[in-house]
Amino acid sequence: MHRALDLAASPGVPTGPNPRVGCVLLDAGGATVAEGFHRGAGTAHAEADALARAGERARGTTAVVTLEPCNHSGRTGPCADALVAAGVARVVFAQADPNPVAAGGADTLRGAGLDVAHGLLADEARAVNRVWTFAVEHGRPFVTWKFAATLDGRSAAADGTSRWVSSPASREDTHRLRALCDVILAGTGTVLVDDPELTVRDAEGTPLPWQPLRAVMGLRPVPADRRVLNGVAETVVLPTRDPAEALAALYARDRQHVFLEGGPTLAAAFLRAGLVDEVVGYVAPMLLGAGLSAVGDLGITTLADAMHLAVADITVLGEGPETNVRLTLSPNHAHHPTQKEH
Amino acid sequence: MHRALDLAASPGVPTGPNPRVGCVLLDAGGATVAEGFHRGAGTAHAEADALARAGERARGTTAVVTLEPCNHSGRTGPCADALVAAGVARVVFAQADPNPVAAGGADTLRGAGLDVAHGLLADEARAVNRVWTFAVEHGRPFVTWKFAATLDGRSAAADGTSRWVSSPASREDTHRLRALCDVILAGTGTVLVDDPELTVRDAEGTPLPWQPLRAVMGLRPVPADRRVLNGVAETVVLPTRDPAEALAALYARDRQHVFLEGGPTLAAAFLRAGLVDEVVGYVAPMLLGAGLSAVGDLGITTLADAMHLAVADITVLGEGPETNVRLTLSPNHAHHPTQKEH
Repeated sequence: MHRALDLAASPGVPTGPNPRVGCVLLDAGGATVAEGFHRGAGTAHAEADALARAGERARGTTAVVTLEPCNHSGRTGPCADALVAAGVARVVFAQADPNPVAAGGADTLRGAGLDVAHGLLADEARAVNRVWTFAVEHGRPFVTWKFAATLDGRSAAADGTSRWVSSPASREDTHRLRALCDVILAGTGTVLVDDPELTVRDAEGTPLPWQPLRAVMGLRPVPADRRVLNGVAETVVLPTRDPAEALAALYARDRQHVFLEGGPTLAAAFLRAGLVDEVVGYVAPMLLGAGLSAVGDLGITTLADAMHLAVADITVLGEGPETNVRLTLSPNHAHHPTQKEH
Repeated sequence: MHRALDLAASPGVPTGPNPRVGCVLLDAGGATVAEGFHRGAGTAHAEADALARAGERARGTTAVVTLEPCNHSGRTGPCADALVAAGVARVVFAQADPNPVAAGGADTLRGAGLDVAHGLLADEARAVNRVWTFAVEHGRPFVTWKFAATLDGRSAAADGTSRWVSSPASREDTHRLRALCDVILAGTGTVLVDDPELTVRDAEGTPLPWQPLRAVMGLRPVPADRRVLNGVAETVVLPTRDPAEALAALYARDRQHVFLEGGPTLAAAFLRAGLVDEVVGYVAPMLLGAGLSAVGDLGITTLADAMHLAVADITVLGEGPETNVRLTLSPNHAHHPTQKEH
């Protein structure tokens, strides 16, 4: 299963709507007959990949798979049927399929007389597809809210200038994180004021060949000359101010990971709706004393109601005067600590 | 000299106006004849301490001292004269005395025919008395500004509640830092609104036997029932809004290290005046979206004028939901990084 997990996490697989899956076919003596993994939407599933490589030698093998073999026909046929047809004797999978449409593979296999076991390294398998699992389980994309702010929580100065609150190392890091998502989302306000391109670029500023979908939400019209409408990547305009509506529209387009970048008002709307699943904050060692706050009104008036977040990671980026601190936090795992006088 | 520096940094010496000094007397063969160090205001200087322990054996020795022997009579006589009188043959010191009143010891020693050398481990010696050296060189106390804020830079919620933005571990850490200073300074506004005690307490909340001076600055009267006026520590009220005036009054009282704790307006006044030498910020992983900012108006309207700070240290305090991040920064060593598009 460790080998199957390594296969699932093979480098070079593009970000896409499908889970990453690895499969190893073992003979009765435990020797590897064939290996396979999924290389992205439209290509063979991991099981089909391994079966094709094994050919006739698949008969009587044990298939070790990181995810429950699928039971439905999407762009490819159901893997459960393929395993049965190939004469595989036993299937061991890690993570049960959380997708109600695709689930049922284990039952199909058992019904065909195969020996089926599961749960081995299930947590590790879930981790490989953290965002996909979340999206399938919640029926909406996972949302990462990214902000950059000064020590005193300002994301722009009083005159609106915001380039650059974050350091070059933080901006490079932001491009790395954007590339892990399949949507970059901003509000019409940010598009009108800052005119961001919302693309993934390398250190030299060149756009990468693969780009996440750009999404702009809000009721104000987006002028045609805005950079977000240029030809570097696909763009969708979502005429709504409702975060849940916007996420539903993006999920309907098979999108699973939204990188939310746009403005304190939009961030506050998502936070208030409980629709932020991860916060990535770049804190710059500077003070402004005035200007735009990193987050807008959350409807919180007293400290006991503050929104608490769990710290997942703290990393120092850059050096010298351009040092930034990146905090990664999760609002959903937070709780209010006991208020105790000290 | 390493041994003399260790002696200078001996544990248990109370915070006070004098530099910490260590002295080792060596015979012609390099063997230690006697050691001494300064144990705080009103006690013998390091040289006098070592000379007293050596008695007649001081004659002909080399005195290795971390700081240039003093030349003036304060609460004790000048050490330069004492070294001459004891028949010491040679003096090696690390840091030259930055104090114009006390300096000149080396000249006195040379005038009396002693062999004098200096500069060995001078940086290490300055580090032992970092704050004292700063205060003597600048003619004012060193100022550490401490604040606690949420991720979005709020130090209190919209209704004024601020207990507790910081975690228990951060508050314990704050008491440790307070104990290293000889003044805890707040504004009358903070005293009226939050009624802080401004004392150093242990983890159980018991005040330590030694307390820094409490100072309250501002023009509003401080009601007699405020906790800052209780008997736990000495308190001085400074009827001024001018940071330089307040620092001058505190320096006149032999104070060298101010721990500035009071409110965004006071912090902004010190920052604008260039009178903050160190910033210690406790960042709590929570969001408020509204409320009091950690720092008031700095007169900065555009990002290019932002006050940049150099990051000296980043430490994670506490665990789980009560994790805080402590940033230690220095405004005085900062510069504006090149504004470059990325």
